[in-house]
Amino acid sequence: MSEQGRPNVTVLGLGRMGTPIAAAFLRAGYPTTVWNRTTGKADGLVAQGAVHAATPAEAVAASPLVVVPLLDYDAVRRVLGPAASALSGRVLVNLANGAPEQARELASWATDHGADYLDGAMMALPQTVATPEGFFLYSGSERAFTTYRAELDVMASSHYFGADPGLAEIHDLALLGTGYAALTGFLHAAALLDALGTAPADFAPLASRWLTGMAQFLPELAREAGARAYDGGVSTVDLNRVAVDNLVRISRANGVGGDVHEPLRALLDRRSADGHGEESFSSVFELLRPRDAGQR
Amino acid sequence: MSEQGRPNVTVLGLGRMGTPIAAAFLRAGYPTTVWNRTTGKADGLVAQGAVHAATPAEAVAASPLVVVPLLDYDAVRRVLGPAASALSGRVLVNLANGAPEQARELASWATDHGADYLDGAMMALPQTVATPEGFFLYSGSERAFTTYRAELDVMASSHYFGADPGLAEIHDLALLGTGYAALTGFLHAAALLDALGTAPADFAPLASRWLTGMAQFLPELAREAGARAYDGGVSTVDLNRVAVDNLVRISRANGVGGDVHEPLRALLDRRSADGHGEESFSSVFELLRPRDAGQR
Repeated sequence: MSEQGRPNVTVLGLGRMGTPIAAAFLRAGYPTTVWNRTTGKADGLVAQGAVHAATPAEAVAASPLVVVPLLDYDAVRRVLGPAASALSGRVLVNLANGAPEQARELASWATDHGADYLDGAMMALPQTVATPEGFFLYSGSERAFTTYRAELDVMASSHYFGADPGLAEIHDLALLGTGYAALTGFLHAAALLDALGTAPADFAPLASRWLTGMAQFLPELAREAGARAYDGGVSTVDLNRVAVDNLVRISRANGVGGDVHEPLRALLDRRSADGHGEESFSSVFELLRPRDAGQR
Repeated sequence: MSEQGRPNVTVLGLGRMGTPIAAAFLRAGYPTTVWNRTTGKADGLVAQGAVHAATPAEAVAASPLVVVPLLDYDAVRRVLGPAASALSGRVLVNLANGAPEQARELASWATDHGADYLDGAMMALPQTVATPEGFFLYSGSERAFTTYRAELDVMASSHYFGADPGLAEIHDLALLGTGYAALTGFLHAAALLDALGTAPADFAPLASRWLTGMAQFLPELAREAGARAYDGGVSTVDLNRVAVDNLVRISRANGVGGDVHEPLRALLDRRSADGHGEESFSSVFELLRPRDAGQR
């Protein structure tokens, strides 16, 4: 504990994310221990007051809270393996990117070594760590999350989803999926307009503006989907079906590839054929949700 | 002309969009003539100073600039048909939603009757008319666009794309397509998380935040796509391929339907198989753009 009652924090790995994370803890007044595979990266942080541990085991032993912003699960295993005996009684916060089952396996391994495990996913860039723009997702030990909420909030605003350690990675993938779909739709539209004489750079500001508007619209879609009530919207399945049909037809006529909008077209067609053409666009949610979800 | 040198403006159709458009012209000091199929809708505007024409022909004859914010091309034809002989020498701005060929046909019809035709697409809601949030797209007569730019800007910021009257509708569809893709990706992600215990309403604020960040990212994607230079990014095809694979696999395992991410998965797989796995995500643009576009 520091004089102000702040616990010592260890940051293992000083890459693109680890360095701003360690710097954020130092700025917030936490005694901070760092370790990195190559030593030069610690110099700037040591100048700001960090303690540089010689080994991962020494770094883990220094703090009750061990934050690991390494790139992937293989790197985490390589670094933590030799430090396993030091883990007992500590909280391990793994921020690597991966699949939910990798998080579950690492949680099981860490728990076997006496650690309390929290899996995290960083929805941030190096420059948005410790700013209102970044946010981190967590799952795993609720006790660990509650105990160290203040410390986690130093890195980014924190969102906890449940005891299954895989949930943070799944929520990460869900956010990525929303973004992937948007970027793919944009690149498809840019390819169509490029073929017709509007350069991607001229389209991007308009698309950015439009997409920002769509982002503000998500809570309304969520309300309809959550309530399974689709009769309040002005933008119906059949109305949007016409637009999606036009888009698919014109894209093909201009040689634009990818069939990016085929899944949506199929969803709208099915909704309309099933007699829901006058319902809100968001009612395609009924075809996406698992069939047995209504019985839960 | 009004005393201030502002031309008379006619607004044909006082529906959801027509009413705020006519009100915006009145607020901006334009002498404004309105017409609507049912007369009650004009009362509020008449109280604000609008002149209520008895027929579409009378309304068209009243102004050099005739703005038509009707719902679709059929409605435009029905209303303008009996007023055709009044069109000669006027600028007709059609704001109906439709397909590019409908815009081209109407342009041809209007030109045959001596009008200068401008096709417009309203990227706005009733409440964002005449605010910085709304914007309108135009194509068709460049002379009409240049002559009445100040008047068009009263409704929303104006973007002109070329002499082909279909271009505004195509740009409209391209923006809608970007938005559709984003909303579909969101509903798919919401269905996955709903099945795992996170309600759509709890996911929406995070997704909204994430999507707003993606919107800011579009100009960078456009720069890469426009320059066909894909080697500067930190987010490679192969890195994102792993995430999309995980997303598809977990969605299926949880019974989430729609195969929404299959087109992107196929694009990333092809890019990787063709030896471009280390290029930036945006390089899927090469598979979307028309094959012969490089020869233009």
